[in-house]
Amino acid sequence: VTAGRLFVVGLGPGDRSLLTPQAAEALRQAEVVVGYEGYFAWIEELVRGKDCLRLPLGQERERSRLAVDRAAAGSCVAVISSGDPGIYAMASILLETLPASRPPEVTVVPGVSALTAAAALLGAPLGHDFAAISLSDLLTPWAVIEKRLTAVAAADFVLAVFNPKSQRRDWQLRRAQEILLTHREPQTPVGIVRHAFRPGQSVVRTTLAAMADAEVDMFSILFVGNSTSRWEGDHFLTPRGYDVRAAEEGR
Amino acid sequence: VTAGRLFVVGLGPGDRSLLTPQAAEALRQAEVVVGYEGYFAWIEELVRGKDCLRLPLGQERERSRLAVDRAAAGSCVAVISSGDPGIYAMASILLETLPASRPPEVTVVPGVSALTAAAALLGAPLGHDFAAISLSDLLTPWAVIEKRLTAVAAADFVLAVFNPKSQRRDWQLRRAQEILLTHREPQTPVGIVRHAFRPGQSVVRTTLAAMADAEVDMFSILFVGNSTSRWEGDHFLTPRGYDVRAAEEGR
Repeated sequence: VTAGRLFVVGLGPGDRSLLTPQAAEALRQAEVVVGYEGYFAWIEELVRGKDCLRLPLGQERERSRLAVDRAAAGSCVAVISSGDPGIYAMASILLETLPASRPPEVTVVPGVSALTAAAALLGAPLGHDFAAISLSDLLTPWAVIEKRLTAVAAADFVLAVFNPKSQRRDWQLRRAQEILLTHREPQTPVGIVRHAFRPGQSVVRTTLAAMADAEVDMFSILFVGNSTSRWEGDHFLTPRGYDVRAAEEGR
Repeated sequence: VTAGRLFVVGLGPGDRSLLTPQAAEALRQAEVVVGYEGYFAWIEELVRGKDCLRLPLGQERERSRLAVDRAAAGSCVAVISSGDPGIYAMASILLETLPASRPPEVTVVPGVSALTAAAALLGAPLGHDFAAISLSDLLTPWAVIEKRLTAVAAADFVLAVFNPKSQRRDWQLRRAQEILLTHREPQTPVGIVRHAFRPGQSVVRTTLAAMADAEVDMFSILFVGNSTSRWEGDHFLTPRGYDVRAAEEGR
């Protein structure tokens, strides 16, 4: 049996207007499509007649094993991921699942990430150096997460927070706020986007001082500004640099 | 005169297969298209017959002023940006240029960022928390950049480096390497992608110890792994978590 082929396909945030032609083409080529059941509604007519393995939320390792097994048996398989598959999504776990001997060829098809889609709805929060941190301590010790929050706060990065809260994790966001407040002003802009470019989309404009009181869940992404970020009307604006006129004059 | 409308449109990395339908639709609606002259070749037939203002590299502020002026005069204007407009691109500078009084409505259309497109070609370098830093000290004091590099190194973030080198800036990458080596192993995976999804695309797989010897320029993006990143064959793999089995058992 010839080893098959694996595509890890970024579908973008959900709206078909943000699904790329390259992602659609990978789905057309696939014989088997593996993914979270909720994503199939976005691409129903693109995968009609294909072998669709619709799996429940979580179970990323099982999804990966299924996909790798089907590719090893010779099929062309697409693993679907919302956003971009490389950011808190399927690309990493799928590559971890590959067999050492004769692995199928893997192609990662990038997508519009939830990160930039959510940012676009706010304006330009990521206008300068930034960091992304997940507050989920399921696979990462909380001590590591705290260390990263402290580093980001002290070095004046814009911060994008993923997985801020779930039903079982309810104190991490408040702790993150405490850490950020030791280095940044209470009035620092915070934007919270939920379900960017999906039904139920919401955008909340608030501040670091108030962010832990906002309604957030595992579908929310939070943006915390750096020391130069500000609201310009409804737009979250992080300037692309600091005032370094003096430095420029010296060049 | 009614104020017009402004789209800030992410075209993706350049290949038309990664330009979204939403971006194409914004270009169709626009009467005026403003951008770096080099990007128009990607979208020629989408903007035929429109008023195209093709400007040289740099001059982002001039591009923004032109676009805002045309929108203020009542036109529907698209400002084009490669990748995603929110990451080291046009969204921020455009919002800075808006007049305080009666600004035109601005819509940011997200795109596939150079960040995730380059990452996809390497595998999954961004599989866990990460930071993006530009080494250009044109608008940011070098002391701030060094502080960020140190923070990222100490807190074990994956790092994406933008603007690693230009003809006038030739020592910053070596200094960044020194800082990273104080906290990370010389064998840490480094991937260097130039012109992702464009003619002349190149992908280099190397290590932190050797990265400053690689050929890089202002079109290159470098990825430096965290302490758990590794090469799996040709794939740059950052696992999505740490080994916290002990912690999981305690849940």
